[in-house]
Amino acid sequence: MSDVTLIPIDGLPEIKPGDDLAAMLIRALRASGRSFEVGDVLALAQKVVSKSEGRIRKLADVVPGAEALRMADESGKDPKNLQVVLDETARIVRWQRGVLIVETKHGFVCANAGVDHSNAGAPDTLILLPVDPDASAGRIREGIRKATGVDVPVVITDTFGRAWREGHMNIAIGISGLPALRRYIGEFDPDGYELRVTEIAIADEIAAATELVMGKLDRRPAAIVRGLTRPEGSETARTYVRPHDKDMFR
Amino acid sequence: MSDVTLIPIDGLPEIKPGDDLAAMLIRALRASGRSFEVGDVLALAQKVVSKSEGRIRKLADVVPGAEALRMADESGKDPKNLQVVLDETARIVRWQRGVLIVETKHGFVCANAGVDHSNAGAPDTLILLPVDPDASAGRIREGIRKATGVDVPVVITDTFGRAWREGHMNIAIGISGLPALRRYIGEFDPDGYELRVTEIAIADEIAAATELVMGKLDRRPAAIVRGLTRPEGSETARTYVRPHDKDMFR
Repeated sequence: MSDVTLIPIDGLPEIKPGDDLAAMLIRALRASGRSFEVGDVLALAQKVVSKSEGRIRKLADVVPGAEALRMADESGKDPKNLQVVLDETARIVRWQRGVLIVETKHGFVCANAGVDHSNAGAPDTLILLPVDPDASAGRIREGIRKATGVDVPVVITDTFGRAWREGHMNIAIGISGLPALRRYIGEFDPDGYELRVTEIAIADEIAAATELVMGKLDRRPAAIVRGLTRPEGSETARTYVRPHDKDMFR
Repeated sequence: MSDVTLIPIDGLPEIKPGDDLAAMLIRALRASGRSFEVGDVLALAQKVVSKSEGRIRKLADVVPGAEALRMADESGKDPKNLQVVLDETARIVRWQRGVLIVETKHGFVCANAGVDHSNAGAPDTLILLPVDPDASAGRIREGIRKATGVDVPVVITDTFGRAWREGHMNIAIGISGLPALRRYIGEFDPDGYELRVTEIAIADEIAAATELVMGKLDRRPAAIVRGLTRPEGSETARTYVRPHDKDMFR
């Protein structure tokens, strides 16, 4: 197997609603003497995608409801902030000691429905997850294909916590042009034993890998994975959503 | 920021108890015209580490106890197999529909205490996690340092499931020479907002990244991460173990 290279894309400007991310990425790459190549996978941090789509709420415009006010009372948290999170929430999974773990409308389980203050680009502003991150990935992929002729699978990443592990890592919330899972079901090791771990979350691993060259403080929200041997096919990131009847930790 | 390269290490033979993994890795690298370089991080799949340490049990030698027999009765699973898992278990987290999620003696929460059949190298043989994966990582790091003069941080990886996501990914169960977490606590984005996500699980991300070049079926259990900008310091993988009083999903 050959080497895989993680290539950070530097030089993206601050992203604003309506910005054409595909065009901006192509420009930023060109400025560093590079271009998209066949076989590349593009990883993009959710925040720039959300900003380009206008998935932004100003706290000044938020009127907290009864539940947000009650939760603010219990926790000392800002009721407007809580209301924005509740608006993005399908179901509260845990609410303990001011920590709010929810299932988003997409089905993802994460803290605060992925709503975030930091790197919002303006004060008193919250960034929401894209309404349909798979569709977002598809649009950016299509924009790159139209402009360059190269079909680059796209993974939209966000930084999630884990149930039993300290620290956060990047995972995939949107996918286009790539399977979510590499399936080993029915495959056997050299001794003839069927493999225990049968499905590897390849887009999640791409997300985690590219975080290593992204960084949180320096406006580098995009990276390319080059040289990856990857399975054929295309799935959405909803593939990762565990059905409720298989969820042992609701 | 510069590119990061993920370099698979091919050509390792089947590993046996007592094997000197550091020496075998150096030889395998040399055979492909490479060597360890300053700044490299080595990722190693748990299974080869466990095999080299003799962390192997033959099912023929296992006598199942009352709990294993009861669980076998409930699930149709092999009682000897269950006994081996229970021997590695500090606490059962979930036991539902034949799925056994436990806390290992290290504090990691995973299926079947990380005990595994596949790629065991012999029939009716189970591979256990290393007793102290951080110490294992330290020994291999020291072996490489002594033989080459290069201090290469080592991450021992295993493939874990997730509470709410389908598919598995590699995470770090042992670390030497590298921090577990990249800490942004007290750091601020360009608008002056303190970062929401303050601790990135960098060794877990290294584990996930290197899985992309490892593969499960082709005996390629090692890879190098080259060119990574990484924080100073050294922590164990126990840093990831969430204290019980912070665990909302026990």
